[in-house]
Amino acid sequence: MSAKEIPYKIYLEESEMPKQWLNIRAFMKNKPDPLLNPGTLKPMSQDELSVVFCEELARQELDETTPYIDIPEEILKFYKMYRPAPLVRAYCLEEKLQTPAKIYYKFEGNNTSGSHKLNSAIAQAYYAKLQGLKGVTTETGAGQWGTALSMACAYFGLDCNVYMVKVSYEQKPFRREVMRAYGASVIPSPSELTNIGRKILAEHPGTSGSLGCAISEAVEAAVSKQGYRYVLGSVLSQVLLHQSIIGVETKAALDKYDITPDIIIGCAGGGSNLGGLIAPFVRDKLLGKSDCRLVAVEPSSCPSLTRGKYVYDFCDTGAITPLAKMYTLGADFIPAPDHAGGLRYHGMSSVLSRLYHDGLMEAVSVKQTDVFKAAEDFARIEGILPAPESAHAIKTAVDEALKCKESGEEKTIVFGLTGTGYFDMLAYEKFHDGKMTDYEPSAADLQRGFDGIPDINL
Amino acid sequence: MSAKEIPYKIYLEESEMPKQWLNIRAFMKNKPDPLLNPGTLKPMSQDELSVVFCEELARQELDETTPYIDIPEEILKFYKMYRPAPLVRAYCLEEKLQTPAKIYYKFEGNNTSGSHKLNSAIAQAYYAKLQGLKGVTTETGAGQWGTALSMACAYFGLDCNVYMVKVSYEQKPFRREVMRAYGASVIPSPSELTNIGRKILAEHPGTSGSLGCAISEAVEAAVSKQGYRYVLGSVLSQVLLHQSIIGVETKAALDKYDITPDIIIGCAGGGSNLGGLIAPFVRDKLLGKSDCRLVAVEPSSCPSLTRGKYVYDFCDTGAITPLAKMYTLGADFIPAPDHAGGLRYHGMSSVLSRLYHDGLMEAVSVKQTDVFKAAEDFARIEGILPAPESAHAIKTAVDEALKCKESGEEKTIVFGLTGTGYFDMLAYEKFHDGKMTDYEPSAADLQRGFDGIPDINL
Repeated sequence: MSAKEIPYKIYLEESEMPKQWLNIRAFMKNKPDPLLNPGTLKPMSQDELSVVFCEELARQELDETTPYIDIPEEILKFYKMYRPAPLVRAYCLEEKLQTPAKIYYKFEGNNTSGSHKLNSAIAQAYYAKLQGLKGVTTETGAGQWGTALSMACAYFGLDCNVYMVKVSYEQKPFRREVMRAYGASVIPSPSELTNIGRKILAEHPGTSGSLGCAISEAVEAAVSKQGYRYVLGSVLSQVLLHQSIIGVETKAALDKYDITPDIIIGCAGGGSNLGGLIAPFVRDKLLGKSDCRLVAVEPSSCPSLTRGKYVYDFCDTGAITPLAKMYTLGADFIPAPDHAGGLRYHGMSSVLSRLYHDGLMEAVSVKQTDVFKAAEDFARIEGILPAPESAHAIKTAVDEALKCKESGEEKTIVFGLTGTGYFDMLAYEKFHDGKMTDYEPSAADLQRGFDGIPDINL
Repeated sequence: MSAKEIPYKIYLEESEMPKQWLNIRAFMKNKPDPLLNPGTLKPMSQDELSVVFCEELARQELDETTPYIDIPEEILKFYKMYRPAPLVRAYCLEEKLQTPAKIYYKFEGNNTSGSHKLNSAIAQAYYAKLQGLKGVTTETGAGQWGTALSMACAYFGLDCNVYMVKVSYEQKPFRREVMRAYGASVIPSPSELTNIGRKILAEHPGTSGSLGCAISEAVEAAVSKQGYRYVLGSVLSQVLLHQSIIGVETKAALDKYDITPDIIIGCAGGGSNLGGLIAPFVRDKLLGKSDCRLVAVEPSSCPSLTRGKYVYDFCDTGAITPLAKMYTLGADFIPAPDHAGGLRYHGMSSVLSRLYHDGLMEAVSVKQTDVFKAAEDFARIEGILPAPESAHAIKTAVDEALKCKESGEEKTIVFGLTGTGYFDMLAYEKFHDGKMTDYEPSAADLQRGFDGIPDINL
């Protein structure tokens, strides 16, 4: 335990802010398996990736050896507008739970996009600008990524086309309007603007869209327009690289007060937040300097780590993206309408999948109603209204703190509070009115997803 | 100019956080005129005020002599969860405007209530708890105050009844749900729960309510229920006292880097933010230590300072509150549906009114579409999506910075960014789609308001 008094919020000084991203892959003995070209089944080359992604981002995607990568000055400048994010000591929560555990959370919601997504959005927009592109395309479901990218593109004067899953476009008009306020074009998907969109609309005239379809449309739009590339907010290794700023800052804040964490907890959809949060702690584990537990939390409705298979699969339902080796429920798996839209993804970052497979990381799944109970309690005790995604980590952190209460252990628990729930009030209302249900895929549901996994794994 | 490099964001250390509120009135030679009992036309006594307000708050309302008041430990603890608020150097905005001016803003939006209102809400809830009350009642229009009070009451375990103007209740369902997530009862006003509500509903069956009516209902509910008091988020001197935390922190942050402001700018509805922001600078002006300009910004649709009269008037349309000497458009004045709901109030804090009357403060009014243009530009340049209220200060700060560009002066401009615009996206949408109009009361509109001012002033 530290002799120094721990403040409610630890803010790094501007001079203490990290100047490098941390590339976990450089420290992994067992590297994640490479992305494969679905046509040739050979590892994707940088040239192949550069058709879809910005050149520098394609390079980062393939870089498994450089341990630390300098953050360009222009990105550092933008980071200074909304970072460092505070590492908060949850004194009030500890008191309420009457636990001897010490609970900290890294809060990434203090920016208009409302989440950690901005950390990678600004990096991807920067590299697009550097390459002289006109703009970028992307998809968004819950809207956090689309909002972050719109902000980043506004800053660099890039055109930003966001394919927003139609049901979200209609049900989350305010999310849409935030993106428009930042100058983005927001297109309900499926749309008439792409071949894939037109095809899907012809086959399913009344469809409300899906993330998989929106990805396919955004990719098609990027490769068919001069001066555009596609960008993605999660899953990819480049995204985890940018998000390492979360973990590196967290580690620096802990070190400043001589705090050694026992457990690090983060929600995991595609893995962008968790992969960033745990980066320096994974490094230290791999170097034999730490035995900290690392815990991924996923919704019971979409349990890719806890119930999925570790195989090669497509990243989208349209099957036009490269194949990734990952824990997956199958690209055809249809997640139930859980309100944590950011966690409704069939697969998991290949980096995190590898770590989990090698026993370096644990995973748990939690039920939606338990998550919202934890969210509402947390809001009332600690003042911050969390995003449903973030609340998965809260639920598990509280569970761990209660275990400490039972055992009397003074463990130090750190969790990632990725964002705020301002645009999720429909879900809170449902919970509050007792109209929320839990979802858990049956064995048959899972089998249907697994059946769609490509044959390459056989 | 300072020799030290100014960071993007100046955060005070926890140990540097203010421990006292600053009571401007103690420094004023010309005190604001007292609140009058509308029946006797005599100054309200503490006993009379205590029927409606918590005892300690009634005491603070009347305290014109104590310059500094200790902030209770329990409130300091809560402040530590979301304060200090950063003082941000708007480097990117300066660069975009190509101005030699140095622009700073005090950002109060980094808490779930989304605004500075929490600073007084937690204080008022604390004193209610201290007095052993069961709960409090209040009204809310735009919803920032209601949200802040709900959070504060959740923290202290108090019942919280919010009378929400019906049109807001229906058009801002997410605001309503945030309050409910914090455990508040939210009642659309006019309601069947009060005599005044029933009377208004009988007379105007289809009415969508008004702030004046909601105030009357909340006051009636408080005085007719055992163990309840009424609390208010602006206008009152006690509120300005609590909000002085904004200014005291701002001054401490500026002093830390030897920065002397030339102009301080804040939006002004009832005056809670502006009165708090300028507190230490007013003190220094009154003590002859500063010649800093202080500027209140109001909407052209509701110009109480720039076009109102300095007279005694009611604080509510129901004419049940004490009379206050203030700049007012008349309690019967009906402000046009400007989207800055927090600034649609007919009167102005009696403290600020006095300062303005004595030439210690300036005032300007700005048009809604200009405000939203400034808001959208600011969001794209500085990353933060401002509340429409806050954007009034942005607009004026930009105007001042552009004047500096013309004159070549390196002035230091500080403005208050009171909150975020997450719940104002309908307004942004209107602006974006070119459907927003400007409002300016005609001479006849003003006269109608003035006609309702009580005879006491004659």
